[in-house]
Amino acid sequence: MEIKQSLEKFMKTHQGHHFLQIPGPSPVPERVLRAMNKQVIDHRGPEFSRLGKEVLEGCRTVFKTSDPVVIYPSSGTGAWEAAIVNTLSPGDKVVMVETGHFATLWRQMVARWGIDVDFVPGDWRRGADPATIEAKLAEDRARSIKAVMVVHNETSTGATSRIAEIRKAIDKVSHPALLMVDTISSLGSVDYRHEEWAVDVTVSCLQKGLMLPPGLGFNAISKKALAASKTNKMPRSYWDWQEMLKPNVNGFFPYTPATSLLYGLREALAMLIEEGLEAVFARHQRLGAAARAAVRGWGLEVHCLEPAEYSPVLTAVLMPPGHDADQFRKIVLDNYNMSLGAGLSKLAGRVFRIGHLGECNELTLVAALTGVEMGLSAAGVPHLAGGVGAAMEVLEGRGDANSWPPLKVAAG
Amino acid sequence: MEIKQSLEKFMKTHQGHHFLQIPGPSPVPERVLRAMNKQVIDHRGPEFSRLGKEVLEGCRTVFKTSDPVVIYPSSGTGAWEAAIVNTLSPGDKVVMVETGHFATLWRQMVARWGIDVDFVPGDWRRGADPATIEAKLAEDRARSIKAVMVVHNETSTGATSRIAEIRKAIDKVSHPALLMVDTISSLGSVDYRHEEWAVDVTVSCLQKGLMLPPGLGFNAISKKALAASKTNKMPRSYWDWQEMLKPNVNGFFPYTPATSLLYGLREALAMLIEEGLEAVFARHQRLGAAARAAVRGWGLEVHCLEPAEYSPVLTAVLMPPGHDADQFRKIVLDNYNMSLGAGLSKLAGRVFRIGHLGECNELTLVAALTGVEMGLSAAGVPHLAGGVGAAMEVLEGRGDANSWPPLKVAAG
Amino acid sequence: MEIKQSLEKFMKTHQGHHFLQIPGPSPVPERVLRAMNKQVIDHRGPEFSRLGKEVLEGCRTVFKTSDPVVIYPSSGTGAWEAAIVNTLSPGDKVVMVETGHFATLWRQMVARWGIDVDFVPGDWRRGADPATIEAKLAEDRARSIKAVMVVHNETSTGATSRIAEIRKAIDKVSHPALLMVDTISSLGSVDYRHEEWAVDVTVSCLQKGLMLPPGLGFNAISKKALAASKTNKMPRSYWDWQEMLKPNVNGFFPYTPATSLLYGLREALAMLIEEGLEAVFARHQRLGAAARAAVRGWGLEVHCLEPAEYSPVLTAVLMPPGHDADQFRKIVLDNYNMSLGAGLSKLAGRVFRIGHLGECNELTLVAALTGVEMGLSAAGVPHLAGGVGAAMEVLEGRGDANSWPPLKVAAG
Amino acid sequence: MEIKQSLEKFMKTHQGHHFLQIPGPSPVPERVLRAMNKQVIDHRGPEFSRLGKEVLEGCRTVFKTSDPVVIYPSSGTGAWEAAIVNTLSPGDKVVMVETGHFATLWRQMVARWGIDVDFVPGDWRRGADPATIEAKLAEDRARSIKAVMVVHNETSTGATSRIAEIRKAIDKVSHPALLMVDTISSLGSVDYRHEEWAVDVTVSCLQKGLMLPPGLGFNAISKKALAASKTNKMPRSYWDWQEMLKPNVNGFFPYTPATSLLYGLREALAMLIEEGLEAVFARHQRLGAAARAAVRGWGLEVHCLEPAEYSPVLTAVLMPPGHDADQFRKIVLDNYNMSLGAGLSKLAGRVFRIGHLGECNELTLVAALTGVEMGLSAAGVPHLAGGVGAAMEVLEGRGDANSWPPLKVAAG
Repeated sequence: MEIKQSLEKFMKTHQGHHFLQIPGPSPVPERVLRAMNKQVIDHRGPEFSRLGKEVLEGCRTVFKTSDPVVIYPSSGTGAWEAAIVNTLSPGDKVVMVETGHFATLWRQMVARWGIDVDFVPGDWRRGADPATIEAKLAEDRARSIKAVMVVHNETSTGATSRIAEIRKAIDKVSHPALLMVDTISSLGSVDYRHEEWAVDVTVSCLQKGLMLPPGLGFNAISKKALAASKTNKMPRSYWDWQEMLKPNVNGFFPYTPATSLLYGLREALAMLIEEGLEAVFARHQRLGAAARAAVRGWGLEVHCLEPAEYSPVLTAVLMPPGHDADQFRKIVLDNYNMSLGAGLSKLAGRVFRIGHLGECNELTLVAALTGVEMGLSAAGVPHLAGGVGAAMEVLEGRGDANSWPPLKVAAG
Repeated sequence: MEIKQSLEKFMKTHQGHHFLQIPGPSPVPERVLRAMNKQVIDHRGPEFSRLGKEVLEGCRTVFKTSDPVVIYPSSGTGAWEAAIVNTLSPGDKVVMVETGHFATLWRQMVARWGIDVDFVPGDWRRGADPATIEAKLAEDRARSIKAVMVVHNETSTGATSRIAEIRKAIDKVSHPALLMVDTISSLGSVDYRHEEWAVDVTVSCLQKGLMLPPGLGFNAISKKALAASKTNKMPRSYWDWQEMLKPNVNGFFPYTPATSLLYGLREALAMLIEEGLEAVFARHQRLGAAARAAVRGWGLEVHCLEPAEYSPVLTAVLMPPGHDADQFRKIVLDNYNMSLGAGLSKLAGRVFRIGHLGECNELTLVAALTGVEMGLSAAGVPHLAGGVGAAMEVLEGRGDANSWPPLKVAAG
Repeated sequence: MEIKQSLEKFMKTHQGHHFLQIPGPSPVPERVLRAMNKQVIDHRGPEFSRLGKEVLEGCRTVFKTSDPVVIYPSSGTGAWEAAIVNTLSPGDKVVMVETGHFATLWRQMVARWGIDVDFVPGDWRRGADPATIEAKLAEDRARSIKAVMVVHNETSTGATSRIAEIRKAIDKVSHPALLMVDTISSLGSVDYRHEEWAVDVTVSCLQKGLMLPPGLGFNAISKKALAASKTNKMPRSYWDWQEMLKPNVNGFFPYTPATSLLYGLREALAMLIEEGLEAVFARHQRLGAAARAAVRGWGLEVHCLEPAEYSPVLTAVLMPPGHDADQFRKIVLDNYNMSLGAGLSKLAGRVFRIGHLGECNELTLVAALTGVEMGLSAAGVPHLAGGVGAAMEVLEGRGDANSWPPLKVAAG
Repeated sequence: MEIKQSLEKFMKTHQGHHFLQIPGPSPVPERVLRAMNKQVIDHRGPEFSRLGKEVLEGCRTVFKTSDPVVIYPSSGTGAWEAAIVNTLSPGDKVVMVETGHFATLWRQMVARWGIDVDFVPGDWRRGADPATIEAKLAEDRARSIKAVMVVHNETSTGATSRIAEIRKAIDKVSHPALLMVDTISSLGSVDYRHEEWAVDVTVSCLQKGLMLPPGLGFNAISKKALAASKTNKMPRSYWDWQEMLKPNVNGFFPYTPATSLLYGLREALAMLIEEGLEAVFARHQRLGAAARAAVRGWGLEVHCLEPAEYSPVLTAVLMPPGHDADQFRKIVLDNYNMSLGAGLSKLAGRVFRIGHLGECNELTLVAALTGVEMGLSAAGVPHLAGGVGAAMEVLEGRGDANSWPPLKVAAG
């Protein structure tokens, strides 16, 4: 009894390594932190020019494109806005899909810019349906739809939309709409191919698969999108692509760039390329499969319903009725020094989210899953004990062969 | 001869401490770099809430206001845009003053948003003239001018506009125009009082007086500006003040904040408050006076013509005819490992700029001035030798009593 | 099959967080790393004086003594030497106990200094026996034994000697021998009381419970030891206590101190004091109990045979016959990016050691244990699967009540 | 008046960049600090083996030798002791030269180890005289002198002994004595050639020319010294070369190495090799010449009397009678945030020392000299104003051609 109490006390001190297992910001690797721990330099000098060129080149590799990628000092939200104001005009019509909280936020932003959004409703438990998009575009004989805008990995739900199939759907009906994709929580973690999939604008940012602190936003821009930006009618200045592209040729930026984040980005890009993008993607698949095995092992439910769309980046878990996810997360934080992601908007209190992205590896994931399992006990949430063990089986290649990697099958 | 050659060779290696004497980004103090060298945290958790509140509170102290200050992941350019889109509507009329390159850029941005700018021409060698502004407003019987927009410290010229006097000019004619001030290169270095001077929107950013790497932009917002933001008609989302102000109450942000920069900002604000804002301003005055004494000692010309408007943050120096400032700067960089600021736009090649802001102190300034003096010799620019000595006299309090602090006299 | 191969490849890249689970050096907390990331200062100036005093005061708190603690730029081995040369003379007789590899090394060092060592043999599977020491001293009617020298926590075996009981044994026979204790891997992790237990010289260093990189060694010195140092006949200079103690009064050192490590030490001492030493000790007890539960869960054998002497700092595990511990450790490193401790000397290849000290917490430990469990599978070492689960039970307070904390019972 | 007072107040806050101009520890370059800001690794693992080998190889380059260099976790004082206990036996006779405070300290240490020191007296204003050493050895028909022990650069006086000439003196009389040289404040700053000059033991450490925080000591060991170590009779353990040399072959150490300092050392060695050792030496010569020109410009006296022995690493300056050097240094620290070196032992209060070593470059030196010049004024020390200007002339190659580089002439 006495021991129990004293334990409770010291466990609340948040001692030791903090496990940041939210679906982003993901933990910053020591190597990236170190790269940022560097004095700033003259942003108009020769050393900066080299830095700028290296970073812009590395971005193209990670976006898998030879198209330009522009970098804004902004959050990912800013990169959303940049995609909109550079391509669309007030009154334009676009198709978006309600995959979850972030798709909904992007839609609200689009609407604020005077765009007419056809928002395909969804249950927040799966990705965007290629067939529905195809149908919408097929109906649009007037070709009045200017863009299809999709979130690749819905950070709020753990469902990944199949962009390659959406591309095919658009092509099938030969619709000229731009394809704009939010890869905020997928870039550098989930297979993504800006150029091969003929995406027109890819939106992304730093703090997920790129393993950096937040503060930079990206737009990768196809030739078609660039052409659209020359005639669209949205007022803009900060986000204007043309202003960016000119000085970028020499590694410079039209306004003062966020130097320390660029130092870190250079290092993070190097790390991804050293590990190999395909290896990075396979690792995330593997970690996701293990996390889902744990959830099933606990007898709980993975929030995403479509195996072909399970996210390799995060796993959202449904709380059993009568139990509050936020209360559970607080217990985990207080007792095990781990941060889990909250359910957002209509999922608040109903799901918690386990991030397994960025520099996450096998043992880090198991630590996180253990924290969940022990937290379920501490919170009095009914569950089975075998979750961690089930995850270990997957990590050892002994788990259910069908449980992963689902996206590979889907892409086939 | 042999010695000379070998010297030339090793001096080009950019060895040792780099003197970053551009007028921003200014060198980041070790203490601030260290504060940023820290793992990111959950941006929705309790530890972040404390961070956010501390930083927002510290900002109000440094802006000298009890009004809200909002913080964007953006460059200062973004904060310019935020000021515009939150207060003005397409077709509105504003008065701006051509104090230099940055005033011109801000004007271009305002114009891109469909605002009608009355741009008071200037020779780029002094600040905004309060009397001219007063006259413009007096003429405006229809009260159609919605805002007066001024750059406090023109980083391109080294002239500081007298905001307190501009405030008086506006009040004298009882004009309801908003007063919007760019303090990008003055905040935390030059005396500035958002609330006392009844400024409506103060724009600023990190990388000058706040001594941080670039990446955050600020708007301090008066009640009058806030009221304007509720009725103005500019489309916006990312920059929208209302979205910011709501979560800010609890130390949170509407989209993922740039955590590592906020860590650094907390530390930098603490440093400014520890030294004392008045002491910080006096130090900058003193360093500016010493820099100008050096320029006069060399027999060269300070670009700013109005003593009451000398910048305490930077000193722009006119090159003698027939000598190229950029060539000179390259020689200084190659031989003495120091970066000086370039002349911008129409001043390109004609002036160079010495930054003496942020954590700059006496010995750092003298090092910079020595680099200039030796660089003038190396570049074959005719000059007198006594510049560094003249600066030392000022720093010792032995220099010309009239040479500084001019702004104090002006403000009286 | 194809998947398996590609997995094997990417798992060998040592990606993500490295789990450093050797029994020291232990991982350096980010907070300590950051404290060290600081420019050096004048080691004869006023700022250094404050640093020195703070660190020396903090050391006394952690050693639990009001006696002086001296700090050498050295490894722990140097602190061993300092204890010898300051107290003993050539030809002196001492009693030491063969608790394992490090006791054997210390004995060799003592012998190299011309001391006559009565080395009580041991099986490397338990701590020093108080009764044996008592008997040795009782026999020594001539009081010719000058010191009893014991390793508190044998890092090579995971057995902790009961110093309080050894003190009692010495007192029981009223023997004047000095008591010298190596706390290299126990200080700051295991309950230790220099003054209450009347230890004469306590030897320690940085890289275990103090959570720093290696580079400083300590001697805590009783009045009796100090008196001995004034008459003993061993030549010495670098290690001489008198030279240290004089400048220490003002926070200075007789030769250039290792400033950056002192910065880190100041921070680490603050962390230990903030968490509370008793809480730190209880945490280590708890982690040790969980680790041993895991070992039993795998059906393997904890190398330490005496429950009252189980180490809270590390657990040495016996490999089943026919399996090589170093091969196993290599597989763990290659597949799971975790370093485990090797068996040393006669235990080479026969045991591996799991470190759970310093900033280690629950989830870190479980990650380590999972790496062991999956590594045992990968290495084809026969074992049961339930180790990690058993550890979780202990961490949740559901495990075998008898399994911990054993030392508390022993001390009662 | 009012201004003066407020200035005094803010100048005492030690604001901005601190100029650490003591003759070591020298400022740690940001690049080296960053390299140390890294988690520790297993000191018995493969990654450490690579680190160890790289560092040991780099040391040989900087010592200019193919002989082994051993690295101790210790201050330079420890490396002094290592040189003694590995080569000499109690009762041995050695010749040492009283070049200053550090030669005197080393002599005291040698004496404590029971060695008979013939200490050639000196006035602390010049290096060791080769002719005197030659005479001493010539007299020693019995060849009883076991070693000649000299400090290369006397940090307390700013005089550099001519080791190449001392080597010639020894050879001239064909004396078999070992030559042992302290390069604590010269290695990596002043031309030094362990192998070419047939030095037997070179002692050094981190915190001067190697630009690191203190904490590691070095011995470079000739074959002759190694042979001596196999027969000498001094008790030792921690410092024993044999114990070091065995594991060093594989990049390992006999006891836990100071990992973070080794990270930094790897980087510092790389920096020296990138700049080029000859360029590094020429830079220090040049900075020393400029510093001495400043001293003469102030009408003060350089403490070192022998131009051929002026130190490129530091300049000790005599205070005019009636003025206290420590009071002056305090004024400089309080007013200009710069640390200067104190006069040591019999020079206390009579000289101050300006360090210009390590990463020091032109502008840093001039900043330091300016701080001295303004400090002399503030302290009311009579002096001429032209010191800084004289230094600038030398740095520009316009100064007195005879004033530097003196050692080159001497060596010719």
